[in-house]
Amino acid sequence: MSKSALQIERSKYAPKMPASIVGATRLAEGKPTASVADQEDIKKLFPNTYGMPIVTFEKGESAATSEPFNVGVILSGGQAPGGHNVISGIFDGIKALNKDNKLYGFLGGPSGLVDHKYIELTSEIVDEYRNTGGFDIIGSGRTKLEETEQFDKGLVICKELGIKAIIIIGGDDSNTNACVLAEYYLAKNTGIQVIGCPKTIDGDLKNEMIETSFGFDTATKVYSEVIGNIERDANSAKKYWHFIKLMGRSASHVTLECALQTQPNITLIGEEVEAKQQTLDDIVTYIAEAVAARAAKGNNFGTVLVPEGLIEFIPAIKKLIAELNDMLAANQAEFDTVADDQKIDYVVKHLSAANAAIFESLPAGVSRQLALERDPHGNVQVSLIETEQLLADMVGKKLAAWKKEGKYVGKFSTQHHFFGYEGRCAAPSNFDADYCYSLGRVAALLIANGKTGYMSSVRNTTKPAAEWLAGGIPITAMMNMEKRNGKMKPVIQKALVKLDGGPFKFFAANREKWAIDTDYVYPGPIQYFGPSAVCDQPSKTLKLEQE
Amino acid sequence: MSKSALQIERSKYAPKMPASIVGATRLAEGKPTASVADQEDIKKLFPNTYGMPIVTFEKGESAATSEPFNVGVILSGGQAPGGHNVISGIFDGIKALNKDNKLYGFLGGPSGLVDHKYIELTSEIVDEYRNTGGFDIIGSGRTKLEETEQFDKGLVICKELGIKAIIIIGGDDSNTNACVLAEYYLAKNTGIQVIGCPKTIDGDLKNEMIETSFGFDTATKVYSEVIGNIERDANSAKKYWHFIKLMGRSASHVTLECALQTQPNITLIGEEVEAKQQTLDDIVTYIAEAVAARAAKGNNFGTVLVPEGLIEFIPAIKKLIAELNDMLAANQAEFDTVADDQKIDYVVKHLSAANAAIFESLPAGVSRQLALERDPHGNVQVSLIETEQLLADMVGKKLAAWKKEGKYVGKFSTQHHFFGYEGRCAAPSNFDADYCYSLGRVAALLIANGKTGYMSSVRNTTKPAAEWLAGGIPITAMMNMEKRNGKMKPVIQKALVKLDGGPFKFFAANREKWAIDTDYVYPGPIQYFGPSAVCDQPSKTLKLEQE
Repeated sequence: MSKSALQIERSKYAPKMPASIVGATRLAEGKPTASVADQEDIKKLFPNTYGMPIVTFEKGESAATSEPFNVGVILSGGQAPGGHNVISGIFDGIKALNKDNKLYGFLGGPSGLVDHKYIELTSEIVDEYRNTGGFDIIGSGRTKLEETEQFDKGLVICKELGIKAIIIIGGDDSNTNACVLAEYYLAKNTGIQVIGCPKTIDGDLKNEMIETSFGFDTATKVYSEVIGNIERDANSAKKYWHFIKLMGRSASHVTLECALQTQPNITLIGEEVEAKQQTLDDIVTYIAEAVAARAAKGNNFGTVLVPEGLIEFIPAIKKLIAELNDMLAANQAEFDTVADDQKIDYVVKHLSAANAAIFESLPAGVSRQLALERDPHGNVQVSLIETEQLLADMVGKKLAAWKKEGKYVGKFSTQHHFFGYEGRCAAPSNFDADYCYSLGRVAALLIANGKTGYMSSVRNTTKPAAEWLAGGIPITAMMNMEKRNGKMKPVIQKALVKLDGGPFKFFAANREKWAIDTDYVYPGPIQYFGPSAVCDQPSKTLKLEQE
Repeated sequence: MSKSALQIERSKYAPKMPASIVGATRLAEGKPTASVADQEDIKKLFPNTYGMPIVTFEKGESAATSEPFNVGVILSGGQAPGGHNVISGIFDGIKALNKDNKLYGFLGGPSGLVDHKYIELTSEIVDEYRNTGGFDIIGSGRTKLEETEQFDKGLVICKELGIKAIIIIGGDDSNTNACVLAEYYLAKNTGIQVIGCPKTIDGDLKNEMIETSFGFDTATKVYSEVIGNIERDANSAKKYWHFIKLMGRSASHVTLECALQTQPNITLIGEEVEAKQQTLDDIVTYIAEAVAARAAKGNNFGTVLVPEGLIEFIPAIKKLIAELNDMLAANQAEFDTVADDQKIDYVVKHLSAANAAIFESLPAGVSRQLALERDPHGNVQVSLIETEQLLADMVGKKLAAWKKEGKYVGKFSTQHHFFGYEGRCAAPSNFDADYCYSLGRVAALLIANGKTGYMSSVRNTTKPAAEWLAGGIPITAMMNMEKRNGKMKPVIQKALVKLDGGPFKFFAANREKWAIDTDYVYPGPIQYFGPSAVCDQPSKTLKLEQE
């Protein structure tokens, strides 16, 4: 592997961790827990792992030692900065307990467990990946661990390798599956524990006890860096409106955090669009009004942040898409025989009147895309819609109409951007490097203490790392029942942006000023070596949530 | 102005500069110069500023002092990181000569000089912008200073403000115009000097005496950061080919530097495409072969860097575009009456047979764009072609055909990106912060020494800043005659990528290995505070050119 100067220097960084888990620790157990909702259903589905207490690690008197044991680790789903540090934390954690302990990495995600593809993670390998971005140490994958057949195949390889515990590093779905697996292995008395670690740049895996998912901090800092650069360009050239789409389909945390970091003129938050039952035209009008107000002051430039999932948050479009999917599924054979240039007509005729009207009101490119392009499951491909370009075009049309009416005087030229892959594999910020390493160390301690069905937890994260609180949260405590593919399933409740939460309220209190003024903030690139005020800041979201 | 933690800390940075210009300096003059080509023509056009010697600044015995004088500064053209440091260097430079000296900034580019829009740049203002990105201190613009009427208007405001010299910070065209202005003011005995500073992220303003244009270092480091992150994502997820277009229409220096920094699988260099007379199909085949070779080893992922100007480097397309522009200009009235769905037919019928064949071989979207969308001057809009997406689509089609023939087994899914605005206003790297500040200090010294028609020059830039060589280069020495809008004009020769130069040769020697192996390098974000090995590196291009 060829390395950059930064890779070489950064590999020397020793992540900070909670003082309570340095040296000897002891486990403290709290009161029994209950799931956040649907307690009876969850309890029935998880008879062995329901109701367990929250546990915390405190400074102990004598160093823990244990019989040697082996651990298997899995990276599941999309990349997030810091995954390699979770693994190095696990490695150092189990080696500190007994130097003969071994760590195995299952390759290419959960399928590695099922298909028995793995490597032993030795110190030579782990050392190459400390404080680096990416999931390339063992690769990741999106296979869902849901079937008992998969679980049984996993059991075979665990027995073969003497694996006492599996650690699954993943998002809400992967951690739900980790808990199902923990329950299954416990029910079958296999002796194999399962621990989860909260990963996702989307920031939507969090709750009272899990303050943030790892990777969110670094990814939003990378996006904020380039957004700030674009803002400065807009404010220097003074001739473009930049429409910037940011990754995050299910929640708008990424967009909100970037807005707090960079103070752009306009920020759209999907959860607010849904709560206020806004239409596409409402959103376009809102942007166009801000453009016109800035133009009136001579400022024909600006920045707009758009969450990737925006379209799906618009209630009218959400309903349209749901009916489209059902209708196309029901009529698939017939629809496939319809000529391409007749497909839009076909769709209009087969939709309910209300949804047909919404469909016909969409720009031609979007309606064509919804009618013609579907994914392998037959669903319309909302993610292919280039929302940032769509909005820019629609705002342009509205402004042109206003200009004719004399309601707007100005120039409107646009550029558009989409940031996602740019941040998912960045080298972790100090926060994520420390947080991830700590999550890994805590996971090792949970295993040593015989826990299963727990998520590794590090709290108090707006304080210096030494004061962070280490422990474990029963995954069942985060669950409720939700409909998935027509069936009710136990799942970890997804954390959406709370409109009464600190981060959104701060944003809402300032956005009018940001819209009209040019009050951009330029965060610059992540710094690893400078003053603590620059290098060790948690996300604004975390700070405002904890205030 | 709200500020980030990094903005606050970075404002304290004291740029490094050549030891020879700290304290007392003395000017040494070299031999007379000649233009790089067309000496007779250039000499005739610049009788007063032709043939002047290269000058260098050396340590002197006594501090230079002078009568008070005022300076006007102009930012011209696209943003480049470090412009604010040139201005702070000028400011500190003239204040060191005489604390009563004043610096005026003309607003919004060269038009500020013509329209008499300016501010005085006080220490309060300058201090707010030290080591920051952007051109927002006074704004930039693209007005060309070419007409004597503009020069005369500029003269009025210079006299009014007691301005002894104008400094134009710009690219090759702006510096050409700076020289025309210098010649004019000298011929008219106005007593007003004009000095240029070499700016452009494109890196195409350089020659024997100007080692690099400022902003190239920072912008390519920002692009390399995000390219590295994308590479790491590609290598973790192992499922996408990422097609990444990079700013730079006239030259491929940016793309080449990013390739040297990140070692992607495929890099296209426009100058090579032109030299080898490649067709679009040649390029597509080259990429498809690399994709197939990687797929044969099980690697269905990769990265491709594409320079923004690629399409215009393809000789066949260059000729087609030239004929298209001429033909459409000649037939404009008639063409405007042709129905949209008939325009492609019209174009085919009115082109020469050779170019009609090329036109018809293009993907439908591209030929439609070339036929239907033209800029305000009536020219086809090559820059609107999304080259990165076009190539991804064409490679996909070729691979699908090969699959049918059994020549290719693999999956080919793509993502595409375009980076330009993300890097033009980044806070300057230490290199650019130091280089720009030095250019500004040198410009002040050139003025104090009565020079005009010179470009500020700082050389030996791969050595520590203290060893850099400071001086001035007569702009006429960089000129030759070129056809512009049908007329021969004196212009600074644009620096294209040299296929026999160190940077390209290093790339060419390694690209086969990079194509097949996954030998990515992850440069990470620009660091301002860490070890010198990380923070103070010039570009790879500069190092390989100087070796």
